[in-house]
Amino acid sequence: MHASTRKLLDERDRADITVPMIAADAGVTPSTIYRRWGDITEVFADVAIERLRPDAPPRETGSVRGDLVAWAQEYLEEMSSPVGRSALRDVVMSGDTNPLQCATFCRTQIETILGRGDPAGSGGQGVVEHVIDHVVAPIVYRILFDLDPLEADRVGVLVDQALDAAVRV
Amino acid sequence: MHASTRKLLDERDRADITVPMIAADAGVTPSTIYRRWGDITEVFADVAIERLRPDAPPRETGSVRGDLVAWAQEYLEEMSSPVGRSALRDVVMSGDTNPLQCATFCRTQIETILGRGDPAGSGGQGVVEHVIDHVVAPIVYRILFDLDPLEADRVGVLVDQALDAAVRV
Repeated sequence: MHASTRKLLDERDRADITVPMIAADAGVTPSTIYRRWGDITEVFADVAIERLRPDAPPRETGSVRGDLVAWAQEYLEEMSSPVGRSALRDVVMSGDTNPLQCATFCRTQIETILGRGDPAGSGGQGVVEHVIDHVVAPIVYRILFDLDPLEADRVGVLVDQALDAAVRV
Repeated sequence: MHASTRKLLDERDRADITVPMIAADAGVTPSTIYRRWGDITEVFADVAIERLRPDAPPRETGSVRGDLVAWAQEYLEEMSSPVGRSALRDVVMSGDTNPLQCATFCRTQIETILGRGDPAGSGGQGVVEHVIDHVVAPIVYRILFDLDPLEADRVGVLVDQALDAAVRV
């Protein structure tokens, strides 16, 4: 089902894709899809969540700051692509547990990075919240509301500010 | 049309609302609505944009910082309400120019506030971008992705950090 949906999304406008089309491509009946997903919004969200799920732990660069900058720049790049933009929109519009799951993917990657540093010096949970509010949130807000995306160079500044701010709290 | 849509949204689940229902309530034909808006997503987005459009300039408290905190706390409160949440989701999912328009409402209010201060000391455009990235973005991200909303107390801290960060750039 996922493969069929992804294939159709690559081929045509999402507004033109219907449950019967996905069913035909996947070789199942439409009612199989309705029974499992309810409607097409949920099918798109399910595909989007799989696209947003990290497929590897964050890259190691030798420092927490370096790992955060590398992860955030990659996240910015992926989410700014047409596929990333659509996936974010599909997740937000589906409601249910999908948006929280998407945010949790980010949180888990950030926690993995911070866990590599000195746990005593990292400020723990406070730092995670700061990175979410000051690095992830601006990246995603600008994409969803069609503002100019963050410049990749600014990601380093935002990471520094988040680490800084967390220390000052 | 707007009044009918708002009335129906107050009465029942949005998933159950159809263009013919809105048309019946408004006393027009469904084709009138399809001609003007295209589909129900656009009708919802149009109603959402009107709900999000500021109806007054930001409150004056005597200082730029105070005005920003007051505005942001009010924005947080409005967007966290069920009506605000739905409006944000409707705007994001509709695409088109709606998301940018919604972000522009915020930008304009912030610019109005900053314009009340000393223009030379305010840092100009840089401050606007910082307030968007560090105050508006975390508020909206947390709402759209179902994280715990920002606490009203933290809004003051975020405004200080944004003003601070802008000065340091």
